[in-house]
Amino acid sequence: MKKICVVIGSRANYSSIKSAMKAIQDHPGLQLQVVAGASALLDRYGSVVDLVERDGFTIDRRIYMVIEGETPLTMAKTTGLGLIELATTFDELKPDYVVTVGDRYETMATTLAAAYMNIALAHTMGGEVTGTIDESIRHAVTKFAHLHFPASQDAADRIRKLGEREDDIRLVGCPRIDLVKDILEQDGDAVLGELKFEGVGGDVALDQPFILMSQHPVTTEFGVGEEQITATLEAIEATGLPAICLWPNSDAGSEDISRGMRKWREQGRDTRMHFFKNLPIATYVHLMKRTACLVGNSSSGIREGAFIGTPVVNIGSRQDMRERGSNVIDVGHSRDDIEKAIRRQLDHGRYPMEPIYGDGTAGARIAEELTKHTPQIQKRIVY
Amino acid sequence: MKKICVVIGSRANYSSIKSAMKAIQDHPGLQLQVVAGASALLDRYGSVVDLVERDGFTIDRRIYMVIEGETPLTMAKTTGLGLIELATTFDELKPDYVVTVGDRYETMATTLAAAYMNIALAHTMGGEVTGTIDESIRHAVTKFAHLHFPASQDAADRIRKLGEREDDIRLVGCPRIDLVKDILEQDGDAVLGELKFEGVGGDVALDQPFILMSQHPVTTEFGVGEEQITATLEAIEATGLPAICLWPNSDAGSEDISRGMRKWREQGRDTRMHFFKNLPIATYVHLMKRTACLVGNSSSGIREGAFIGTPVVNIGSRQDMRERGSNVIDVGHSRDDIEKAIRRQLDHGRYPMEPIYGDGTAGARIAEELTKHTPQIQKRIVY
Amino acid sequence: MKKICVVIGSRANYSSIKSAMKAIQDHPGLQLQVVAGASALLDRYGSVVDLVERDGFTIDRRIYMVIEGETPLTMAKTTGLGLIELATTFDELKPDYVVTVGDRYETMATTLAAAYMNIALAHTMGGEVTGTIDESIRHAVTKFAHLHFPASQDAADRIRKLGEREDDIRLVGCPRIDLVKDILEQDGDAVLGELKFEGVGGDVALDQPFILMSQHPVTTEFGVGEEQITATLEAIEATGLPAICLWPNSDAGSEDISRGMRKWREQGRDTRMHFFKNLPIATYVHLMKRTACLVGNSSSGIREGAFIGTPVVNIGSRQDMRERGSNVIDVGHSRDDIEKAIRRQLDHGRYPMEPIYGDGTAGARIAEELTKHTPQIQKRIVY
Amino acid sequence: MKKICVVIGSRANYSSIKSAMKAIQDHPGLQLQVVAGASALLDRYGSVVDLVERDGFTIDRRIYMVIEGETPLTMAKTTGLGLIELATTFDELKPDYVVTVGDRYETMATTLAAAYMNIALAHTMGGEVTGTIDESIRHAVTKFAHLHFPASQDAADRIRKLGEREDDIRLVGCPRIDLVKDILEQDGDAVLGELKFEGVGGDVALDQPFILMSQHPVTTEFGVGEEQITATLEAIEATGLPAICLWPNSDAGSEDISRGMRKWREQGRDTRMHFFKNLPIATYVHLMKRTACLVGNSSSGIREGAFIGTPVVNIGSRQDMRERGSNVIDVGHSRDDIEKAIRRQLDHGRYPMEPIYGDGTAGARIAEELTKHTPQIQKRIVY
Repeated sequence: MKKICVVIGSRANYSSIKSAMKAIQDHPGLQLQVVAGASALLDRYGSVVDLVERDGFTIDRRIYMVIEGETPLTMAKTTGLGLIELATTFDELKPDYVVTVGDRYETMATTLAAAYMNIALAHTMGGEVTGTIDESIRHAVTKFAHLHFPASQDAADRIRKLGEREDDIRLVGCPRIDLVKDILEQDGDAVLGELKFEGVGGDVALDQPFILMSQHPVTTEFGVGEEQITATLEAIEATGLPAICLWPNSDAGSEDISRGMRKWREQGRDTRMHFFKNLPIATYVHLMKRTACLVGNSSSGIREGAFIGTPVVNIGSRQDMRERGSNVIDVGHSRDDIEKAIRRQLDHGRYPMEPIYGDGTAGARIAEELTKHTPQIQKRIVY
Repeated sequence: MKKICVVIGSRANYSSIKSAMKAIQDHPGLQLQVVAGASALLDRYGSVVDLVERDGFTIDRRIYMVIEGETPLTMAKTTGLGLIELATTFDELKPDYVVTVGDRYETMATTLAAAYMNIALAHTMGGEVTGTIDESIRHAVTKFAHLHFPASQDAADRIRKLGEREDDIRLVGCPRIDLVKDILEQDGDAVLGELKFEGVGGDVALDQPFILMSQHPVTTEFGVGEEQITATLEAIEATGLPAICLWPNSDAGSEDISRGMRKWREQGRDTRMHFFKNLPIATYVHLMKRTACLVGNSSSGIREGAFIGTPVVNIGSRQDMRERGSNVIDVGHSRDDIEKAIRRQLDHGRYPMEPIYGDGTAGARIAEELTKHTPQIQKRIVY
Repeated sequence: MKKICVVIGSRANYSSIKSAMKAIQDHPGLQLQVVAGASALLDRYGSVVDLVERDGFTIDRRIYMVIEGETPLTMAKTTGLGLIELATTFDELKPDYVVTVGDRYETMATTLAAAYMNIALAHTMGGEVTGTIDESIRHAVTKFAHLHFPASQDAADRIRKLGEREDDIRLVGCPRIDLVKDILEQDGDAVLGELKFEGVGGDVALDQPFILMSQHPVTTEFGVGEEQITATLEAIEATGLPAICLWPNSDAGSEDISRGMRKWREQGRDTRMHFFKNLPIATYVHLMKRTACLVGNSSSGIREGAFIGTPVVNIGSRQDMRERGSNVIDVGHSRDDIEKAIRRQLDHGRYPMEPIYGDGTAGARIAEELTKHTPQIQKRIVY
Repeated sequence: MKKICVVIGSRANYSSIKSAMKAIQDHPGLQLQVVAGASALLDRYGSVVDLVERDGFTIDRRIYMVIEGETPLTMAKTTGLGLIELATTFDELKPDYVVTVGDRYETMATTLAAAYMNIALAHTMGGEVTGTIDESIRHAVTKFAHLHFPASQDAADRIRKLGEREDDIRLVGCPRIDLVKDILEQDGDAVLGELKFEGVGGDVALDQPFILMSQHPVTTEFGVGEEQITATLEAIEATGLPAICLWPNSDAGSEDISRGMRKWREQGRDTRMHFFKNLPIATYVHLMKRTACLVGNSSSGIREGAFIGTPVVNIGSRQDMRERGSNVIDVGHSRDDIEKAIRRQLDHGRYPMEPIYGDGTAGARIAEELTKHTPQIQKRIVY
């Protein structure tokens, strides 16, 4: 029985791998190990571990590793601390494969710990192209990984160009789309009925047009986050529509964005805006299904958005070069351009589904491939 | 004036970058910063920092980071610890470029600290192909680096295939060849006259045929080092020639090789063998110039060996796929095969020079390119 | 010239050592080095380093070391990380004395780094008795320190009982009282005129009776902070007086208290309460001079309160056994008891000055003693 | 059932707690957890963990934490790294008591991790007085510990003077004496018959007079170890007796002593001396029983020596102020004084037993007290 250790470092990580965890847990030939670390353990990000346990998983190890500061410096140190403790963890758990997700800075810690210790590394969401330090991380992880689970054809092709063996590349789609598919089969009214609007401004009527906002820091544009989020909030305000706004993730620069959002609220400009630390994924998906427009720079607009058909205004460089469908309008950080793009999407309405990032079966396929694959621990570039 | 921070992690690191350090120090448009860490600080590896200072460099920071154990686990943890402290160091020194060498595990710590903190990273010796975890590290470092200084045409081509921008690839040759060139211009008799043979067995007559041995652990073949070194020592013994033998580097597995060497000595089989912890590079180069055959798996046989024309018996997988000249015979770990190959080289004698890894001007060219290059901090894969 | 390295880990640390830093900086025989770490670097605690620089000090090193989570576990890990980097820092700065303040968990990191490295350690505020893990930390630091600067006679006696040499104990008073003395000489109306009351509820009229609240977590009572702060807030509410409330420090458990305070505000019960992340020390001192009653468990009520004559209601175990003046009424965490005690203090009014913790000359005396003292690096208990 | 977690950091640690571990393992009311770290994991110190497992214990966690360098700096960093990982470990194992031994630098890591996390800490060998940084560490650990197991009456009294509660001090003797007692009941000829003398010089006839040598670094006398060990070796040589010599422990400065010993051997002055990395404890105890004189600065001469009746020449400051019996002659580092003292002991012969450090029942008493004790997690000094 192969032991498969999945490392979860954030809420986004979790929803990007959950369907594969279920499939691994249910597979007779596989044994699931779960390690939670980084922001997945922190109250400030909504304590993802509680959610993981409620979903029926046992957490084998918890690694507190986030060094406060939210600067590039602390991001680097966090990775170092994570690497130290994940190495000890893998030495104890002795997995056959470690599964790591995506391209967050702490993903690098998981990657190095596994690869240095000659443990086979499986990587999801490799081969994509985006616009921050994640871009370098993602391709570097590919160079360490022994088994690749790209989400799209384009990504699979890029992994091949990076010199990886054909046999190690298994195109499975994105496991997050599996969740989206399941969620869309639930009753949207019931799901959204649980969303509580506390504080000023009264409820947002979810059967009327509303905007959904999610904007994260761009690690290479450190220091300008406050200005950028303010432009976005002003553009939303100008449309006159109510909005549901999410706080940023914990990447370097998030403090800037948070400060901008706090100031906005202290100025009392949030009367029609509701701010959420985070939302249950089901809520978020149904909001994407209903929103008149998703605004910001979250990858969800491009990935899940294509599957769901959400009108998206994608701001700035964070999603540059990510394969996208027709549902996305790209703009810069100008307040006016953002407003104009939102208005264009309001005029257009919803889009048809485009399954660029998978068809909802990624998790099961990952589990299956893990049983069949033989890793070549000593990697060698193919050219 | 651009601040250029060179990180030295080992003796090999240092000799692979020293000529560039000199050129940077002497360049009016550049200011040199030196950080020493990992085995470069340890007595056990001959305290490289003392050598660096004697060579006229000032060491700005010293980072003790090697966690004892010499296993893959401690190698991973060492990288994590190095990352934590190098991040703090770069935050203080605020260099414009960090220069990192090669593919050792602690190279990864330097790489992540610089790249995460949006400091331009220059990398020497990228694009080559070898046979351990170094292979993955080297290509991953390439994916983080903003400026590449490959040592050979073949390596430059491979960096290009990995999706790096043409403008960031500057083929300069290997700075270690610069040193070799300088050293070969010195008087070999004078240099070798300083070598003291202590302990049993008397002097090795360096004007008579002798063997030079240097064998390091292969990190993916953890646990078999003792057996491998014993086969090599037996083959050397069988030739009847005296030998100069070097202790291994500090990679995971070095303790195995050391144990094998210690047992050999305790059995008194070292009567015609002299063991050195390490040798001054000048001594080593002139030994390479004179030796009847260099035996082991050191990269020097392939790189400097091509330039010097040294007959080499290269054992095992450590140098697999490294571009090599006609001076190298490759064998497995069989005692008999090793002996046979040594005898073939003894019959052949010295080889003509092949400057595959540079023409002795790499250091100056690196300094020059650093003044001219403009880094694209937000990297993006070209395909 | 002796090099004196002061390590600042928090806002409280800084105001407890600032007058000594000034005196060291101004002393011809001493050279000041400043290291800032832990919460002193974090926005969340009001970026103390900016204040330090505005006060005319140069910060030699910044050590980000707070691991997020605010649990006993992360407190321990934070200390470990601080120890690693402070050791490297002291190795670079090579101070003759390291000065550490009080008993916070990161104080232990400073202490171990200095003592292990045979650097003389001077400790302020030793020998006192309080009621959390700080109690053990403080006495343990005394056992490592080479020079003690107790703030009160009682504390000096206790250090002696702990087996320290008479010659190493110098009773100087608390440097924080130096600041208080200076501040009280400033014009209170001018100082308080700068306090901005933002958000709901309008200004607090500072010439009318108002309450000042400051309540921190008790690390050994982990998990009950929310309940405790709620009782305090309800008692204050019941008095009908407006209140100025401070957010807690970063000790384990602070998240509980913060949550309680956030919920209170979300329920809209803060109409006459104003919440501050932190206050300039001058503002705080003049608030202590004017407030009808200081409520909570801050040590300031007991230490500065005695000097200023502030009526104090001290809640719970955090200040147990700290030497106190007649201005303090002690109560448990019962809402009713707290309210009753506040009402008693409102009836009583201000108290006369009692200089238990010094007369305002501590800083100058610390500098002077540092020039005269000869450390016995190899400590030995006297009995 | 109370969970008792014993942390083993070195060979000496282990033999000082082994009998208590056995008793805890066998006690129906207790469950034993074992964590091994620091030099207990390293080949260089004879891989103590293998011995622990052969003795029938299961090792729950292995923490590699020794940072190479063997300087005060790396000693501090090692403690920091240990603290980080031990905190995570205790968070997973959730013991009711952590048991820590003695006063080594890594003992501090165990102590802080447990105490900060509100886990009851039991400490053996507290209250003694010695002459290095251990002195400060030991008393600091006492200030954190919730339950004290002093080895002698003198030590118990000192713990009391340090302000600890009477109820938390349980005088049990030293568990190492338990082992000694057991070992002395074995057949000495059989035990010593297994000792192999490899290398030059032939066997030491153990039924003829021979010297036993064990000398460790004094951390506050950093840099003079080579000179000190040379004086000792010369004094031994001068007596004309054969000698069994042990390599030093891993404290800061051990590299100096090792260098001195290596040079001695390289000069060929070891013809009648046999060097051992370490010895099985049974061998060592029977050597102590037979040796004409134990020379050096090991605590064993004073502690076990009193029980066994071994003539001891104790050199230098390392054991200063340790309670001792009549079997010990103290000298400085003068070659001549050492020789004279050895000759006096050779004239005197063996001493009668003095059970200052226990009567051989410490382990069982520790287990019993652990079942009965109720820790006061919030400690408070008694005066």
